[in-house]
Parts: sequence; structure tokens; C-alpha cells
Amino acid sequence: MVEQQSGRWQTPAEVRAAARSGRLTGQTSGLAPGFAQANLVFLPQALAADFLLFCQRNPKPCPLLDVTSPGDPIPRRVAPTADLRTDAPRYRVWREGELVAEPTDLLDLWRDDLVGFVIGCSFTFESALLRAGVPVRHIELGCNVPMFRTNVPCEPAGIFQGPLVVSMRPMTPADAIRAVQVTSRYPAVHGAPVHLGFPEQIGIADLQRPDYGEPVPLRPGELPVFWACGVTPQSVLMAAKPPLAITHSPGCMFVTDLKDEQLAVG
Amino acid sequence: MVEQQSGRWQTPAEVRAAARSGRLTGQTSGLAPGFAQANLVFLPQALAADFLLFCQRNPKPCPLLDVTSPGDPIPRRVAPTADLRTDAPRYRVWREGELVAEPTDLLDLWRDDLVGFVIGCSFTFESALLRAGVPVRHIELGCNVPMFRTNVPCEPAGIFQGPLVVSMRPMTPADAIRAVQVTSRYPAVHGAPVHLGFPEQIGIADLQRPDYGEPVPLRPGELPVFWACGVTPQSVLMAAKPPLAITHSPGCMFVTDLKDEQLAVG
Repeated sequence: MVEQQSGRWQTPAEVRAAARSGRLTGQTSGLAPGFAQANLVFLPQALAADFLLFCQRNPKPCPLLDVTSPGDPIPRRVAPTADLRTDAPRYRVWREGELVAEPTDLLDLWRDDLVGFVIGCSFTFESALLRAGVPVRHIELGCNVPMFRTNVPCEPAGIFQGPLVVSMRPMTPADAIRAVQVTSRYPAVHGAPVHLGFPEQIGIADLQRPDYGEPVPLRPGELPVFWACGVTPQSVLMAAKPPLAITHSPGCMFVTDLKDEQLAVG
Repeated sequence: MVEQQSGRWQTPAEVRAAARSGRLTGQTSGLAPGFAQANLVFLPQALAADFLLFCQRNPKPCPLLDVTSPGDPIPRRVAPTADLRTDAPRYRVWREGELVAEPTDLLDLWRDDLVGFVIGCSFTFESALLRAGVPVRHIELGCNVPMFRTNVPCEPAGIFQGPLVVSMRPMTPADAIRAVQVTSRYPAVHGAPVHLGFPEQIGIADLQRPDYGEPVPLRPGELPVFWACGVTPQSVLMAAKPPLAITHSPGCMFVTDLKDEQLAVG
């Protein structure tokens, strides 16, 4: 979430240095305002090709901002002075689909065959929505966005398959129209909504019982608007149960050197 | 409506010549495909300044493509070889808000103080929707689009005031999202929708009882999507009851030399 808090760390390099030194081990919302934050996935090279293909086939939930070479911890396109092993505040280590550790760096776990995937995050378009005067409910409430597994299958690739996960933001009709316009400008961070209006059409039974995040109220006269969500690849990884996968810890994002507006088209 | 019929007249000049000679006295839907058709309004100069201001203040229902100088029948920006007195198939003459005649030309009625307003029309964005693979219900059914007076007031200007009139197209959620994207590219022809989802929020009680045009079915799982409509200025003119006003006859549009794509942004 892009809360309007004044972060202690204003630049991407400052946030990453704070994460690297252990001073920052929690959420990154509101830090380095104006810069794109990102989801992280690491996989051994043997699985990385399939996962890359999965992302290519499912660009709305998995918009790739950068992919490292095997063993190279530096995301050379999005933050050439960063180190992906240390520069996110907290990581999650998955073995056979089970969460086994939540370290603050990957120095002990690093392997020469690990490939890092830097995946766009909704913070960028939420910041654009706020600038456009479109309120975002979960930001107003200071909670995490509600997320739902849908009945919409992703395009499979190798061992990777599973349903699309979406985030939901309640909006008035006029704000929903404006939100389509605003978020369409950001295809590299999930882009336009994938659905609005009828949760049951995409297999969501109860908006008050999200699969991830926290519920937010849908007020009378509002439409639920759904975006493809960066939790999709984590969900797919957990289902595929690879021997090893590493992700960032929820909300503890990697801050890139890309300005949000560098990700805008039009 | 932009039906996929093969028109007898393929170019704007051919359509206008057919209207001028009396060979074409009916609807222009599907003629000169790819070129922008337009609504027409003529008013005496004494009222033209207020109406111009009304259009400027209400660009979504009244997107001005051209305004002539008093007495000049030539729309020099959008069709410099045309004559607005003869080149629409049929006109409507209004005195004190009452329809008094429906002539096929204005040669006998023309006055040196008449100002012509050429106003964008939804045919352009409907054509773009069809090219984008978004079905348009009333075109599929071969009927006129349903139109509704709303409870949303236009910004008044002088004697001109009244509610926004909207057209409605039923769409699946995915098509509604795509339709926002597509029509946002055409601000000169009504642009993005003004509402979707809740007709009662804009004062529409029954979608099956349009104020103009014909009803179309809203199927389960579809959203009603509403655009500002070029009938708004006609409705406002009828309410203002000026001594004289002239419009085109519904569906009998003026064909400009502008390609639909010249009206696209982005």
C-alpha cells in the first residue's frame, strides 16, 4: 500500500541500504515514494525456464520487470547497484511448497544456480489512482488489500499452473471508469482490471472472506473492481511444490530504481 | 449505427452528393465506412453564443467538431467541400420547441445569421468497439440504441439547460473494461462512459423503457454501460424553445471528411 506516511528512507538506495543493514525488516509501504516496488521470486535454474515461460504467458498477474542470470544477485535492468540477496527487508523460503524460514537475507542460502525474478507490484498503480483522485479503500483503512483465488486458470507452463489470484478494490461507478483509464497506463504493474461487478462470475463466493489480505467493506452503490495480483506466482509456486523456491515476505517489497512514471505508457 | 452493410456510397463526398441530389433521404448508418458522421444543430446568431458556451461546458454530450461563421453553410474544418444546407439526408425544423417540418434541405429556410454546429457522434466509437472485438447489442439486433434522460444536470449556459441524455450498451464485465479503454481514445465523440452498473444512480428507473431509441435486452451477468449522448443538445433545444432551431433528423447524419482514426488520441 502506498500510504501517505513520511518514510524515514526517501530514495530506493536508502531503503535498500536499510534492508541490507538490518535496520529495515518490515513493510515497505510508503517508503521511497514515486519509485516502483516489486515482488521477488527466486528459483533454481532447472525450474527457472518454466517459470519464465509461465510469466510470459500470464503477463497480467506476473509482469516481469527484470530476470537475473543464474547466480547473479544483481537486477541489472531495474537497480544495477542493488543486491537481491540482501536488499529486500524479509524473505520467505519454501521447500516442497512449505514455508520453512523467513530470513532477512539470503546470503547463507544463495546458490550459483538461483535465478531472480523481479515482478511488478500494484503499489505503482495505487499511487497513480490516488494522484488521479480515486480513493483506494484498503489504503484509507490502513489494512492490506483483499485478495481472492478465482476460478480463472492461468496459462500453464511446465510444472507451474493454478488459478489467477486477484485483488479487489470497491469503487463508485465513476471511479471504476476512471480506474480503468488510469491503470491501463501501467501494463507493467498488472494494468487494467480483469473484472468488475460480478464476483461470482470469476468464482468468488464471499467478498468478506478473502483468501489473502484483509476484507474491506463494499458500500451500497459501489462495484467490486478486480485486478490480477502478484500473489498469483506465490500461489502457483506453493502448488507446484518445487524442492526450493524463495520469495519476498508479503509487504516487504524490493524497491527498484524505476520511477513509477517510467512504467506508464501513453 | 455502424452496421457492416455495404453502402452504395463509399466516400463522404459520394454520400453528401447523394443527399444533396435527393437520392439519399434516410439513415446514413454504414455509409462511407471509416469516416466520422456527425450531429448537426443550427441556431440564429443571437442564440449561437450561448449554445457554443453550452457545448464548451458540456463536452461529453456535445463534442464540437466544427462551428461555422454566421450565414456560412460550409463546415471548413471537417468538410471544406460540403454545404450543410443540403448535404445531410434530412433535417428537422423546430419552432418554439415544436417540430414543424422535416425537409431534405434547408435552401428555403437559410438565413444569413444561422450558425451551424457539427457535433461528434457515437458511430465513431461504435466502429472502434467492433474493430476491438467488443459486440454492440443494438447493432447486432439492427435497432436504434436505447437512450435515457438522466437526473444528471448539464452545466447551463444562457437559456440552455437540462439533463444529460445517455445511450446504453449492455456488456459483459470484460467487454465493459475493454470498452472504457477503447472509447477513452475518442474524446471528440463522447469519450469514455459516464456510468456503468447502477442505472438508478443516474435516475433511470427502467432500462426497458428508454426515452429515445429502442430497448435492448440486458442479459444475466451483463452490466449496463452508459455514454453521454448527442441527443442531449436536441433535448436541451426542445426545452429552451427558441424561435427557430434546426437539427439533422435522427440517424440521418452529416458525413464529414474526418477519418474516425483522426479523432483518436493515444
